[in-house]
Amino acid sequence: MSYVLYYSPGAASMAVHWMLIEMGVAFEARLVDIDAGQQHDPAYRQLNPSGRVPTLVVDGTPCHESAALLMLLAERHADAGLAPQPGTPERAAWFEMMVYLANTVLPAMRDWFYADVDGDAEGAQAVRALARRRLEEAWDRLDAHLGATHEYLIGGKLSTADFLAVMLMRWTRNMPRPALGWPNLARYIRSLRAMPSFIELNVREGLTEWRNENE
Amino acid sequence: MSYVLYYSPGAASMAVHWMLIEMGVAFEARLVDIDAGQQHDPAYRQLNPSGRVPTLVVDGTPCHESAALLMLLAERHADAGLAPQPGTPERAAWFEMMVYLANTVLPAMRDWFYADVDGDAEGAQAVRALARRRLEEAWDRLDAHLGATHEYLIGGKLSTADFLAVMLMRWTRNMPRPALGWPNLARYIRSLRAMPSFIELNVREGLTEWRNENE
Repeated sequence: MSYVLYYSPGAASMAVHWMLIEMGVAFEARLVDIDAGQQHDPAYRQLNPSGRVPTLVVDGTPCHESAALLMLLAERHADAGLAPQPGTPERAAWFEMMVYLANTVLPAMRDWFYADVDGDAEGAQAVRALARRRLEEAWDRLDAHLGATHEYLIGGKLSTADFLAVMLMRWTRNMPRPALGWPNLARYIRSLRAMPSFIELNVREGLTEWRNENE
Repeated sequence: MSYVLYYSPGAASMAVHWMLIEMGVAFEARLVDIDAGQQHDPAYRQLNPSGRVPTLVVDGTPCHESAALLMLLAERHADAGLAPQPGTPERAAWFEMMVYLANTVLPAMRDWFYADVDGDAEGAQAVRALARRRLEEAWDRLDAHLGATHEYLIGGKLSTADFLAVMLMRWTRNMPRPALGWPNLARYIRSLRAMPSFIELNVREGLTEWRNENE
């Protein structure tokens, strides 16, 4: 199995990058400098026509969509135990959480950051207001889901849902109400940020913000 | 395996209902009358705290999110062949398409229909304008993906992605540019609408619009 990950520091590639490090599988990481517009390079567009990250080239085939890549990797590396196995009671909850993060939280984050790029500048404020409301509703729901004791989102065990959720929560760090403002989310975030693979991820991506030691 | 599907005619439950009929598995269908507000009944809220459809009660456990339910059912009924098997080259493309429909098309449809319910009424026009743009971009992309010859979205075979896509395309029927206005999508839609399971689905849900015989 060969993997080449095209990533940009702190972008939607982060969850996939984290998972690859956590599993300890061999992969090559290639930087796409979004600030320099490299996602629009014709060579990159051939791998990813939307000009976004991540692209994960799996055995020679370019694949996309972070939530899909996390599910694919969990299946290809079932021994890593990063998703409940098919047929277990937790399997439905894992699919549901992956889709909820992908279809509710992720699009609202896109709206928050890109309302004026994806749409008209004059409508951006309304789009961002709705995005903020939806995100805060999502954090309410996930905070209640975790409660005071749960360490992970699904089945009491680390899974791909945690990589995706923590990446999304990180993106709120400069929002009016960052995810760290919810007590159960704060506990959850600090616990996952302490993982050696998260620390290594930040080193490799050159990220210094939103780490436990900087609080 | 026991299934109870809570559905509303033409709503997000439709793809799951279609798949259950197509597979020929035993299930009970229970109507949630959204026009009468039954999705807010306390008894239903216990099954689905968001007050949406579908809920699929799987062996006694309520499960949600149509895209997640489709993936779960494909896995539980692998012999029905409605998803590429794990380890096949088409598997990554299937995950990617399921996530793309769930995180790009479905949220834009929600914005189109519910901008003034989910958000402020004065911002709804801007939200709907962006939703329309994103949907038309998605139909451009899927039309190109299908081209003039492909009958199905993934791997030349019927899959859960087709149930989800056709349901979403149906929702555009009163939009300024319905999905039927794209030539390859029109061919694809008409081919899938001719399936006996789609015809049976419409009978069971009491739907008369957007059927091949009404064009």
